[in-house]
Amino acid sequence: MPQDTHILLAHGGGGAKTQELIEDVFSSYFANPLLTADDAAILPLHDQRLAFSTDGFIVQPWKFPGGNIGKLSICGTVNDLACMGARPLWLTCAFVLEEGFPVAALHEVAAAMKEAAEKACVAIVAGDTKVASKGQVDQIFITTSGVGQVLPNATLSGKNAKARDAILVSGDIGRHGASILLAREQFGIEATIQSDCAPLWHLVSHLLDKTKPHVIRDATRGGVGTVLYEIAAQSHKGMLIREESLPIDPAVRGLTSMLGLDPLYLACEGCLVIIAPEEEADTILDILHALPHGDKAARIGTVLEENQGAVLVETPLGAITRLPKPTGELLPRIC
Amino acid sequence: MPQDTHILLAHGGGGAKTQELIEDVFSSYFANPLLTADDAAILPLHDQRLAFSTDGFIVQPWKFPGGNIGKLSICGTVNDLACMGARPLWLTCAFVLEEGFPVAALHEVAAAMKEAAEKACVAIVAGDTKVASKGQVDQIFITTSGVGQVLPNATLSGKNAKARDAILVSGDIGRHGASILLAREQFGIEATIQSDCAPLWHLVSHLLDKTKPHVIRDATRGGVGTVLYEIAAQSHKGMLIREESLPIDPAVRGLTSMLGLDPLYLACEGCLVIIAPEEEADTILDILHALPHGDKAARIGTVLEENQGAVLVETPLGAITRLPKPTGELLPRIC
Repeated sequence: MPQDTHILLAHGGGGAKTQELIEDVFSSYFANPLLTADDAAILPLHDQRLAFSTDGFIVQPWKFPGGNIGKLSICGTVNDLACMGARPLWLTCAFVLEEGFPVAALHEVAAAMKEAAEKACVAIVAGDTKVASKGQVDQIFITTSGVGQVLPNATLSGKNAKARDAILVSGDIGRHGASILLAREQFGIEATIQSDCAPLWHLVSHLLDKTKPHVIRDATRGGVGTVLYEIAAQSHKGMLIREESLPIDPAVRGLTSMLGLDPLYLACEGCLVIIAPEEEADTILDILHALPHGDKAARIGTVLEENQGAVLVETPLGAITRLPKPTGELLPRIC
Repeated sequence: MPQDTHILLAHGGGGAKTQELIEDVFSSYFANPLLTADDAAILPLHDQRLAFSTDGFIVQPWKFPGGNIGKLSICGTVNDLACMGARPLWLTCAFVLEEGFPVAALHEVAAAMKEAAEKACVAIVAGDTKVASKGQVDQIFITTSGVGQVLPNATLSGKNAKARDAILVSGDIGRHGASILLAREQFGIEATIQSDCAPLWHLVSHLLDKTKPHVIRDATRGGVGTVLYEIAAQSHKGMLIREESLPIDPAVRGLTSMLGLDPLYLACEGCLVIIAPEEEADTILDILHALPHGDKAARIGTVLEENQGAVLVETPLGAITRLPKPTGELLPRIC
């Protein structure tokens, strides 16, 4: 395949192009046994295991129904740690601000970070602020990094999906992506969809208390579809999902039908994909349904031994089709 | 003092305006016992102490004599950890790339990161890549975060400066700032000044082996002058430096005289400010002089009980003047 000579928006989409860039550039230079393909690196320190992750946030607009870039930056990193079975402990945040950005807006962002950090029981322990001249950065970018402590019994990884495992989601899908689409006001559509942006450690900690899931991932940038493709590749398994069982908010469904988008590729910021032994599926649903941000949890499919690396969708009429692989950038600057 | 309603370049300069922004916004929302005013937060984990820091890099141009943004992003975070007496262990890096950025340039940046990380004996363990549309970010920004393990005997902090302590620098000052100035080609000056950008953990570890310094800081964004003002404020002491004893490269001196700049306010990226008991000053110089990046080390002054919060400069003729406090942004996007 001829390689791109210049960075494309698709390289930031979280799909195949992003993967290509990671493999061609970053993995080849940074290769080491600890470098992770999961949401956070797992680091041995004496008899402890730490999780360490980083995430950059450039969402545009910086404020949207259900949150802002500050809330998003805390939830995103907290959830990356949580998905490795790590109790989030400490965060750092690095701001790049555009000259002329309103200080009142920065207060709003910082207040949202404070609130989200308190909810997630993490402390922001260090920070950095850079300012770029007008036009050299678009308003505000935030990078948060986090360190957490991996629970002794947690061995979560995309590699661990097993044939016949149940595939579940912890909430309805695509709400963050849909809220950003609407916030850009490019469609003249009168609807309010709240982003699902939320810290989810409490869901993971309750699950790990009582069950032994194999994989937990938060379905951010590329949505549930992209995450399932990643897990299919890491575990060399196939993923079969039933279209009818996908929990989708009616407003999100309306928007995606109108625009011809697949909700499976819309970003979530408060929804986990969970892959667990078949016999634990009902317990997991019971646990999630009783918790905040878990009430819409649903079983959506099954892991297959065959169709390795692929994601299949069963339509309401029983036909099985292959989900088109994520390639491009559906929507830039979604998170 | 009336507060600014919009972000100014000076808020990113590392001086008084940056301090104001940190106090008015970030510290007020993020306040917690672990939030640091030093280069990295110190975090208790069972019987260990971890250091955790983050730093955003937006230097323009992204390539300059002596390095590029990739090398800078590794050295900057390694040195922030080192300054807390922490052996740097693990780094994460988050990229924001502009659509259209050349992939070959990204290879150059990643190769420089690999080389700097190997020199500093740290592993890059996790990363993130976002792409912004053309014009929404200037080429490439990198945020690196780092975790290190604090040596058992290290208790370094800006608060610890004591009256009569010696003030030393580990190398000649202002070279990074001068190299960026020249790389911008705005002056029609024919000179090459190499940035001093280098990882410095080896200097700190040798020092902590044999001596007990009170403060170590890397004199980045605001230069040695700004760092001394920070330490003066944290420790409630005065800082007296002798102009004649400042190690300054002749090319840097030439450039700063011509442009009317003070080398004390030019950024360094491979130079430590060390404050240590008077009786250890000679040992420290001996140790530094024998190590790479330490050969230009010099004693530049003394900590005073009086003149709390101020930095004084003794001129070659013996007059003592107060160093003007850093307020504005000398040079935006220097690191």
